[in-house]
Amino acid sequence: MSEQDAWFYCDGVFGEGEVFELPLTESTHLARSRRLRVGALVTIFDGFGNTAVAEVRELESRPVRAVLRVRQRTMLPPPTRQIHLVSALPKGDRQSVLIDMVTQLGVTDFTPLRCERSVAGQGQRSVERWQRLMLEACKQSRRAWLPRLHAETSLTEVVEDKGLGGYTRLVADPSGVSINELDSAQLEKTNLSLVVGPEGGFSDTETVILRSSNVVPVRLGDGILRIETAAVALVTLVGAL
Amino acid sequence: MSEQDAWFYCDGVFGEGEVFELPLTESTHLARSRRLRVGALVTIFDGFGNTAVAEVRELESRPVRAVLRVRQRTMLPPPTRQIHLVSALPKGDRQSVLIDMVTQLGVTDFTPLRCERSVAGQGQRSVERWQRLMLEACKQSRRAWLPRLHAETSLTEVVEDKGLGGYTRLVADPSGVSINELDSAQLEKTNLSLVVGPEGGFSDTETVILRSSNVVPVRLGDGILRIETAAVALVTLVGAL
Repeated sequence: MSEQDAWFYCDGVFGEGEVFELPLTESTHLARSRRLRVGALVTIFDGFGNTAVAEVRELESRPVRAVLRVRQRTMLPPPTRQIHLVSALPKGDRQSVLIDMVTQLGVTDFTPLRCERSVAGQGQRSVERWQRLMLEACKQSRRAWLPRLHAETSLTEVVEDKGLGGYTRLVADPSGVSINELDSAQLEKTNLSLVVGPEGGFSDTETVILRSSNVVPVRLGDGILRIETAAVALVTLVGAL
Repeated sequence: MSEQDAWFYCDGVFGEGEVFELPLTESTHLARSRRLRVGALVTIFDGFGNTAVAEVRELESRPVRAVLRVRQRTMLPPPTRQIHLVSALPKGDRQSVLIDMVTQLGVTDFTPLRCERSVAGQGQRSVERWQRLMLEACKQSRRAWLPRLHAETSLTEVVEDKGLGGYTRLVADPSGVSINELDSAQLEKTNLSLVVGPEGGFSDTETVILRSSNVVPVRLGDGILRIETAAVALVTLVGAL
């Protein structure tokens, strides 16, 4: 892996030739975790498609400080379709696993889903932590577009959301159809909203809401999956279309 | 979710009408985590396809002890095809995530892969910990067959393994073909060996070994994935065939 493959987040616009200091956490990552040196070429990105090759010009160790000079800028186009994951939250560390993996796999939007049988909700510090996890996953998977993080929602709100009007909606459901039974040519072109419920399943009321909507139930193999496994599997399957 | 949906591991054969005590960790799970009571019906399984509905007959709390009586036995058939994951190991907690998720998704065999650029190997206590994780994932996903855990191996050994002679072999590779370009009718019927390399990629020597073998490179979307994400994605894709 070449140094240029090391990605660093850079909050703000950058012009060619510009010299700037990386944010502290990124400077630390560059100097301590990646152990890069003055002269190294790295990639910087702003999460909105702007990337650039930059050269490390100065490095100080206490406090850690990395100064870069922008060489060549590239604007990477946004994802061709939106993949919006609307998922109940697993407990504890499994939340981080979910956010990390689905970002690596290319979701463009994430909305936590509050269900009657939800065992975990969005904590006060979740947003900040999730943003950080998404950033790290973008760096890892070299995605120039950071996923959008939306406010927690209910199933009624998802079903009635006019903003998702043009989206094809799928819900993970052990009694649903196999993904191969769907029209893959159609799914490949449309924006997608992927719904994953809590481990205790949807309540009767929620099941009625789903049945009376146009959300297609999709089966993910023959086992009962934990929330984060179901989310990752569903994102993987639509990503491969 | 009904009580019968709660699965407990039972090391050994059990006959109808038989009364026996659950192992300590399972008794604890039953009494403390699931808070089941005398009279509850649960499912017990031995990891080799034997399952049974059993009734809780006695519960003691200090030390915790659960005595069950077997009602109806069922022998569940083995998976129709083998899905053997041969994967480099990620670091730390990510190992647990990998083992947990791929078991939920139905791998039948797991072999840790030792590569030139591997950053993590199988620790002394790994086998015991992984067995436990697989067991918990089987309980979660209600799989009656526990995956087999094999000794750490090298790429040369995988390629030359006569035991995998009848297997179709796939390797996660960003420059490979999309899974849709493969003959899905063929893949659906054959046993599969899925190879996932380390995050630094295969070495030149290992790349030569792969190129001169019949291992098909398969692309998993457009991002660079961590080991455990790649493994989960590959298992998901072949599982959906």
